[in-house]
Amino acid sequence: MEIIGSMSAMQRFSKALRLSGKTIGFVPTMGALHEGHLSIVRESVKANDITIVSIFVNPAQFSEGEDFNRYPRDYDNDIKKLGGLLADAVFIPTVDSVYPDGYKTYVEVRGLSDKLCGQFRLGHFSGVATVVLKLFNAVMPVRAYFGLKDYQQCVVLKKMSADLNLDIEIVLCPTVREPDGLAMSSRNAYLSAEERLDAALIYKALKEAELAVKDGSLKVRAIAPRLRETLSGVKSITEIQYASAYDPDTLDEITGGARVLIAAAVKMGGTRLIDNIMVDLQAAEGVVC
Amino acid sequence: MEIIGSMSAMQRFSKALRLSGKTIGFVPTMGALHEGHLSIVRESVKANDITIVSIFVNPAQFSEGEDFNRYPRDYDNDIKKLGGLLADAVFIPTVDSVYPDGYKTYVEVRGLSDKLCGQFRLGHFSGVATVVLKLFNAVMPVRAYFGLKDYQQCVVLKKMSADLNLDIEIVLCPTVREPDGLAMSSRNAYLSAEERLDAALIYKALKEAELAVKDGSLKVRAIAPRLRETLSGVKSITEIQYASAYDPDTLDEITGGARVLIAAAVKMGGTRLIDNIMVDLQAAEGVVC
Repeated sequence: MEIIGSMSAMQRFSKALRLSGKTIGFVPTMGALHEGHLSIVRESVKANDITIVSIFVNPAQFSEGEDFNRYPRDYDNDIKKLGGLLADAVFIPTVDSVYPDGYKTYVEVRGLSDKLCGQFRLGHFSGVATVVLKLFNAVMPVRAYFGLKDYQQCVVLKKMSADLNLDIEIVLCPTVREPDGLAMSSRNAYLSAEERLDAALIYKALKEAELAVKDGSLKVRAIAPRLRETLSGVKSITEIQYASAYDPDTLDEITGGARVLIAAAVKMGGTRLIDNIMVDLQAAEGVVC
Repeated sequence: MEIIGSMSAMQRFSKALRLSGKTIGFVPTMGALHEGHLSIVRESVKANDITIVSIFVNPAQFSEGEDFNRYPRDYDNDIKKLGGLLADAVFIPTVDSVYPDGYKTYVEVRGLSDKLCGQFRLGHFSGVATVVLKLFNAVMPVRAYFGLKDYQQCVVLKKMSADLNLDIEIVLCPTVREPDGLAMSSRNAYLSAEERLDAALIYKALKEAELAVKDGSLKVRAIAPRLRETLSGVKSITEIQYASAYDPDTLDEITGGARVLIAAAVKMGGTRLIDNIMVDLQAAEGVVC
């Protein structure tokens, strides 16, 4: 497995492969790899000649006061895990290689970036879109893979890719969960033992709302108050940033519709956790809007 | 010569060429082609296997109240001229093909876009950077060509290209002038006979400042007042938007340095004209800063 450390070296590596007709699958990550990442890498290995995984904790997507410095970094273990999955290259660029002195160019996906998480993380999705576009230009993939746990990121990046006419298939992969339902996240490592137990209640709350909407006992417009009620009863949750039903395409809050995204973001002390589930109400019976 | 009308058709055409190992040279234009454009097309034809010229009057780079609607369009003549130069394809996308309903993604080159012309054309360089990036992704060139008459555009696009790790060589081509010195521009067609005569005095003013700085009779810091004095004496000029000496890389006003960009933007009634010359003061003698 190749280990590549700069944007220019990455571009040389990929260009030679593309010109020889190979398909490249790309899995961008911030490292501290867990089973959520690894399941995505396996998908890429299955579908492409070559799989490249990037590990880059992107300063441009962290706001002042967020966890950029303490975000978990575990390059040695990450490299071991990827080698075991037959990934072909790990791309670990330095911050200076990605954002050299005097860097000035940013991508904005207007109207999708300021909702949900964007309200609480100013500039976050511009940072994400910018770095992903740069990585795409260095890695030159045919397919790029993202996890649905970061649902808004998936929507923003699919929109960017379509709007900018990128010739890349964006593949969205299901959230992988711990046995008690907690969505896997590198940030789960921040949780105390008690917070970790309580964290499972976030998914439980989303799932309860889904079932109640599907069996007709909860209206879509009543999802938000129900979630707030449930989540505010969880001892470790110190702030509910959002918790409601959203249009899966526009990310606007909705009171009905065929497909409903139920999503929440909460804080447990200094740790911010997000989760979501997609509910297909056309397939369900007894729905009352 | 192929005529291509949509982003997706363009991408199919170029992808097949790139995969077969051809080099593509790209000349983006807004049409109403004059000798300035044609000289650039000739450069591309010389240096690349395939030359593609786009004609697209880009709404995203015109502000409210600017000349988007009346900007000259002359597709038939443009196509004839390009055929004569052995260009391989003309790409004339519709506005709907470039900006479909619900379009949301924009590129910003921060810190270079709000100077010089950017002060007077809000959003202009974001519109330029965005459309050029989109066209690059559709045309997939190895080299892309721009005219130095639009100097700030050249700086913004070179910076975007480097920052976003585009694998494209940005080639900047000298300004082509009418016999009396006026920089060729599609907008010169707006000028009345009297304005057209006076328009030649813009270049004359820049050139006089250059010569005076080079022979030591004018300090770099005195370029701005000298230009303002000269230009305000030109009867057809109704507004001087900027006229001074600038750092060629940062576009900040300067009072000295090895390379000085002398640039001006003026209005003659409803017509906005720009011009610039680059002065290499290291090569000159007797310079007083």
